[in-house]
Amino acid sequence: MGSSLALELCALGADVMIIDSLVGGLGGNIVNVQGFLGKLKVSNSDLRDTDSISKLIEQADIVFHYAGQGSHSLSMSEPGLDLELNIVATLKLLEAIRRSKNNPRLIYAGTRGQIGPTAERVDESYEGIPTSVYGVNKSAAEKYCLVYSLHYGMQVVSLRFTNVYGPRHQMKHAQQGVLNWFIRLALEGKTIQVWDGRQKRDYLYVDDATDAALRAGQETEVIGECIYICSGESISLLNAVKCIVETAGSGSYAVKPYPEGQKRYEVGDVLLSNDKARKRLGWSPSVKFKEGVRRTIQFYERNLKLYV
Amino acid sequence: MGSSLALELCALGADVMIIDSLVGGLGGNIVNVQGFLGKLKVSNSDLRDTDSISKLIEQADIVFHYAGQGSHSLSMSEPGLDLELNIVATLKLLEAIRRSKNNPRLIYAGTRGQIGPTAERVDESYEGIPTSVYGVNKSAAEKYCLVYSLHYGMQVVSLRFTNVYGPRHQMKHAQQGVLNWFIRLALEGKTIQVWDGRQKRDYLYVDDATDAALRAGQETEVIGECIYICSGESISLLNAVKCIVETAGSGSYAVKPYPEGQKRYEVGDVLLSNDKARKRLGWSPSVKFKEGVRRTIQFYERNLKLYV
Repeated sequence: MGSSLALELCALGADVMIIDSLVGGLGGNIVNVQGFLGKLKVSNSDLRDTDSISKLIEQADIVFHYAGQGSHSLSMSEPGLDLELNIVATLKLLEAIRRSKNNPRLIYAGTRGQIGPTAERVDESYEGIPTSVYGVNKSAAEKYCLVYSLHYGMQVVSLRFTNVYGPRHQMKHAQQGVLNWFIRLALEGKTIQVWDGRQKRDYLYVDDATDAALRAGQETEVIGECIYICSGESISLLNAVKCIVETAGSGSYAVKPYPEGQKRYEVGDVLLSNDKARKRLGWSPSVKFKEGVRRTIQFYERNLKLYV
Repeated sequence: MGSSLALELCALGADVMIIDSLVGGLGGNIVNVQGFLGKLKVSNSDLRDTDSISKLIEQADIVFHYAGQGSHSLSMSEPGLDLELNIVATLKLLEAIRRSKNNPRLIYAGTRGQIGPTAERVDESYEGIPTSVYGVNKSAAEKYCLVYSLHYGMQVVSLRFTNVYGPRHQMKHAQQGVLNWFIRLALEGKTIQVWDGRQKRDYLYVDDATDAALRAGQETEVIGECIYICSGESISLLNAVKCIVETAGSGSYAVKPYPEGQKRYEVGDVLLSNDKARKRLGWSPSVKFKEGVRRTIQFYERNLKLYV
């Protein structure tokens, strides 16, 4: 998501700096911007290093805060690490922005994981219980952002993304981005294990996520608010996998019961409204699921070896 | 709240240990249990000291987690400290309980401050934005508790208390418990400055809070859930102050506009439903506001010097 946004900003003529400490396993990959290193700058500073971040922030008009760790299961095995990377890092970034002279706008990348299961279609006013420490920490970091917006006049918008997929995502492990992982398995001619398969998810193509972020970076009427950025159409996992296997023309799938030990992470159906995004950002998803899968597979057919 | 609960548990014949590191300014006062030191034990361990806490937890059947810092304004001036005392300490407690042999029940003291302003009467499914880092951190700590309940079969219940007032509360400063602070001013014959005064709050007498906690410690059908513990009747600040001055028979009040610098903390009216508490805990508030104020004033007429 970060590199897709950075490349789009470059294409639009913006002066772009990527800040990524490239913590192992979290998906950062310099390959994503290799062809653009003349056009954009890259810093390996860590958000928790306030001195470095403060200097970098002074040059920014807009900060897109996409940093963090995104694995539910890692957050359960190492809750203190997730707290560091998702909560503490965000608080330090907020303090750096608060102390900066230029008061840059901040776009925070939230997640539908903040609210856990939804029995019916819900909007931003619904409070659910997350199924992992990751969801709790992403929610807390979002609320820090909104509290800082309220108290210090910071220009913050939180975008809660659903299951984002597409080009440039890591393909090394299944801990973030299950759809991309399934695409790797299909491209390698392997069998995709589908647990249950009936659970409906809201999948969003990465370019649509980028479009929403660009709009949130400019629209002033949404300061201090959170907005779901979602396709609004829920697709069963089984249908998603069928589409991948069919489009790839390779791989297969096998449906199995949900394993006992994993059930606690399972959120069931995810049903979210994108009414607010449509009304307040003028945003709507433009890439249908089938087309998004096609583009993603086309990308990895050429580039898979750079991401595994 | 903690001492009131401990004394009630003692009276019921429970084997009680209070754990309080007595961090300065947070309201802990050994005077509260001075007459009962033969009947209950007191440890000064800090929740962040996992070794000590783990040993103490092994002896517990129920843990009432009332520890933390409760000032909105301190949480804004020292957000990192609030994070330590409200989030990190809770996570460490949860890890200690998870690793314990006896899986004690955990009752978490949440707050209405977790959700910020409410435009209409809301229940536990409403997600609002807190007005301070304190509210964010209390919300995150609650959700850690509920996630641990889900994943590890821990017996957790979160009670979200509203503005609790009554005997044994600190009377040194106005940072926690505005109603108690106003009672001190009235008893000392001073003028209470009322900012605006129209804002409605839900005030809860401490014995009603204790009653709810005792019920949550026994009821099994509420495990993994959060419940508002509130009077359900909203009283304007001005009417609350009038009641205090009238009952005390001393002091006075002056209504002023809300100061600009404080407006960001102001949540406006607080309207909450206690339907869930009534239905699921069989709890209802039993001490009317006027009676609660009378009892509180009676207590401090005898004891004020121990709390200032």
